[in-house]
Amino acid sequence: MLESTVAAIRPLDEAAMTTARELQGRLTKPAGSLGALEPLSVRLAGLAGTCPPPLPDQAAVAIFAGDHGVHAQGVSPWPQEVTAQMIGNFLAGGAVVNAFARQAGASVTVVDVGVATPLSATPPDPAARAADPAALTADVVATPADPDGPRLVVANVRAGTRDMTVTAALTRDEARAAVETGIRVAGDLVDGGAGILLTGDMGIGNTTPAAALVAVFTGVDAAAATGRGTGVDDETYERKVAVVRAALARHAPDPTDPLGVLAAVGGLEHAALAGLILGAAARRVPVLLDGVIAVSAALAAAAFAPDAVGAMVAGHRSAEPGATAALRHLGLDPLIDLGLRLGEGTGALLALPVVTGAVRVLHEVATFDSAGVAEK
Amino acid sequence: MLESTVAAIRPLDEAAMTTARELQGRLTKPAGSLGALEPLSVRLAGLAGTCPPPLPDQAAVAIFAGDHGVHAQGVSPWPQEVTAQMIGNFLAGGAVVNAFARQAGASVTVVDVGVATPLSATPPDPAARAADPAALTADVVATPADPDGPRLVVANVRAGTRDMTVTAALTRDEARAAVETGIRVAGDLVDGGAGILLTGDMGIGNTTPAAALVAVFTGVDAAAATGRGTGVDDETYERKVAVVRAALARHAPDPTDPLGVLAAVGGLEHAALAGLILGAAARRVPVLLDGVIAVSAALAAAAFAPDAVGAMVAGHRSAEPGATAALRHLGLDPLIDLGLRLGEGTGALLALPVVTGAVRVLHEVATFDSAGVAEK
Repeated sequence: MLESTVAAIRPLDEAAMTTARELQGRLTKPAGSLGALEPLSVRLAGLAGTCPPPLPDQAAVAIFAGDHGVHAQGVSPWPQEVTAQMIGNFLAGGAVVNAFARQAGASVTVVDVGVATPLSATPPDPAARAADPAALTADVVATPADPDGPRLVVANVRAGTRDMTVTAALTRDEARAAVETGIRVAGDLVDGGAGILLTGDMGIGNTTPAAALVAVFTGVDAAAATGRGTGVDDETYERKVAVVRAALARHAPDPTDPLGVLAAVGGLEHAALAGLILGAAARRVPVLLDGVIAVSAALAAAAFAPDAVGAMVAGHRSAEPGATAALRHLGLDPLIDLGLRLGEGTGALLALPVVTGAVRVLHEVATFDSAGVAEK
Repeated sequence: MLESTVAAIRPLDEAAMTTARELQGRLTKPAGSLGALEPLSVRLAGLAGTCPPPLPDQAAVAIFAGDHGVHAQGVSPWPQEVTAQMIGNFLAGGAVVNAFARQAGASVTVVDVGVATPLSATPPDPAARAADPAALTADVVATPADPDGPRLVVANVRAGTRDMTVTAALTRDEARAAVETGIRVAGDLVDGGAGILLTGDMGIGNTTPAAALVAVFTGVDAAAATGRGTGVDDETYERKVAVVRAALARHAPDPTDPLGVLAAVGGLEHAALAGLILGAAARRVPVLLDGVIAVSAALAAAAFAPDAVGAMVAGHRSAEPGATAALRHLGLDPLIDLGLRLGEGTGALLALPVVTGAVRVLHEVATFDSAGVAEK
C-alpha cells in the first residue's frame, strides 16, 4: 500500500494554476492585495486540478496517539499515562482541540497507533465534569451515541516505541504498519467526504523523536532541532539534546531511506502522520499541518514522495525550533505564528479559516466586469 | 457625545484578569502552550469585567467609506468613482469582505460618511452578475429584501475631504461629526447584539491621510509612514511621500489634539473609525482592527482616551509600513501576518476565529481535575 500510494502522487496541475492566477487578476481587488492567500488559492487549484478548487468545508482532524520508549530517559516532566488520559479527554470533548474543532465545524478522529497504557473503556464521567464550572456542559460532551462526536480508531501497532538510545525505536515492519495506518485513515476520511485533512498528535515525549527526525532530514544539529516541548527546564532540555545526539550517533540514519529513519528514531504517531500526508496527497486533498510533530512527519513524507509537498499547507509556526528548520526545508510558509506549542491539531484548526477563505475568494468574489467597478 | 464617550472609557478589570490567568493554569494543556491566545483571553476578560468573557459570536463589520481631496495630487492610480462603485459591490455581496463575512457569520454595515460620488440607488444587476462564472450565485446576492444581507447607513458629513496640501481636510466640526457618527454606529451595533466590532474601510486615496496620521501620532518620518497602498509605482510613491510631507509642514498638527489632527490631515472614514473604536471601548466590547486605515484611526482613538487600547485587538499586520509603526506605538501584536493590503475589513475577519477561539478555551476546555488528567 505504501508503494502504490507513493506512486499515485503527482505534480500540481499547471493548467488549473494558470486559470486561478488569471481569475485572481480579474476579481474586484487590487492584484496581489490578498498577500499569501493568492498563491495558496492557486496551489490548491493545482492540487485539485480545477479552478476554483472545491471549498474545503468538510474538515477532518486526525489525532494520532503513541507513546515513546525514550520517555525512560527523562525527556519530559509528564507521566506517560497522560497520553491515554488525554485520549479520554479528546473523546469526552474537553480538550482544546475539541473546542477549536467545534468552532471550525471539523470532525475529530483519534487513532491509537501506539499508546502504552490500556485505554479506559469509558470517557470521564460527564456528571463529575459538570460539577466543575469550567467543564463542558453535558449536551456537548461526546458520547458513543453522538454520531458527530469524536470517534476512536484502535490501530495499535505496539504499546509504544522502544528506547531509541538503546535500540531502534521500531522494526521496519512496525514503521511500515504505522505509515499504512495513516494512509488508511486518510482514505477513510476522504471517502467519508472530507475536503481537507488536519494533522493532530498526542504522545508524551514525542517532541524528542520529532527533533531527531528534523535533524536527520534537514541536516541541522541536534541542539538546533530540539526545543522545550510542553515546557521542560534547562536541565531536562540539556538531557533531551544529549538523548537526540546519542540516538543519531547510534543509528546514523540515512535520510534517503525514510522508512529506516522512522524505524530508528521515529514514533508511531510520526510514522502514521507521514502516511496520512501521503494518503492525502495521493487523493489530491490538501493536508493542513499542525506543529513540530506534523512537520517532522512531513519531512518523512517528502522523502518518500517529493511531490507530496504540493498537498501540504503549513498551519502555524510552532514555538519549537525544529518546526522552523523543517518548514524551511520543505519551502513552506506558515499561516499563523502565535507561539503555540500545544499540538493536538490546535494550530492547524486555527489556520483552517484562512485556507477556506483563500478558496472562497475564487468562488464568490465578483469580477471588475460583473460588478461594474472601474480598474486603475 | 465625544466627551461623554471618552469619559466612559475605563481601565481593564484586574480581578477578572486574575481569575482568567488562574483558570488558564488549570485547563488540560501545558501552561503557556496556547501562546498569544492566553494573554488575549485574559485581556478580554478584563475588558468584559468577568471570566469567562462572553463568546464574541455575533460579529459586526462596519465599513466606513469616504473620499479624499488629496486624490487630486495623483496619489492613487484608481479613479475616485471606485469608492462608490465598491459600495455597490459591498451591498451586492460581491467583494472579498462579503465572502469573508459570510464565512465568519459576521454582519456587514456600510456607512457612507463622506463619499464624493452620489451613490447609485440600486446595486449591480444580479442577472448580469450571474452571466459571469465568477459572480455570486443569485441567492446570495443581498437585496433590500434580505434582512441578513449587507446594509447601508447614509451619514455623509461632506462629499469627500478638502485637499490637505492646500487647506485643512476638514473643519473641527466636520471631524467631530464623523467621530460621533462612528460612536453612534458602535452603539447601534452593540445594542443590536454584536459582541465584537470589526473595522472596515473604503476610500480611494485613503492610505495617504493614514500615513499622515501615523507620522503625526508616532513621530516617524513621512517616508517611513507611507506605503504603496493598493499598488502604486515608484513615481507615484515618491509623490505620495512628498504630499504627506507637504501636508505635515503646512499644518504642523499637534498630536495631543486628536480632533485637530483628524481635521488637518485625516479622512472622514478615519475619523469615524476612531469614533467606532471609542464607542466600542466605552461599551467594553472588543474592536478588531483591520489594516493601516484602522490602526491610524486607532492612534487617534488612543490620543482621545489612552485606555481605549484595552479594547483593541490587532487583526493583522498590513503590508503598509505605517501599520507596523502604528502597532508598535499602540503596543499591539497582530494575530495574522500574511501580507494583506486590501482593507475593507478583510484582515480583521481572517483574525476573528483566533479571537473567538481564545475566548472559547475559557468556556469549554476541561480542567486537569475534571478530566482526570495527571499534571507534571
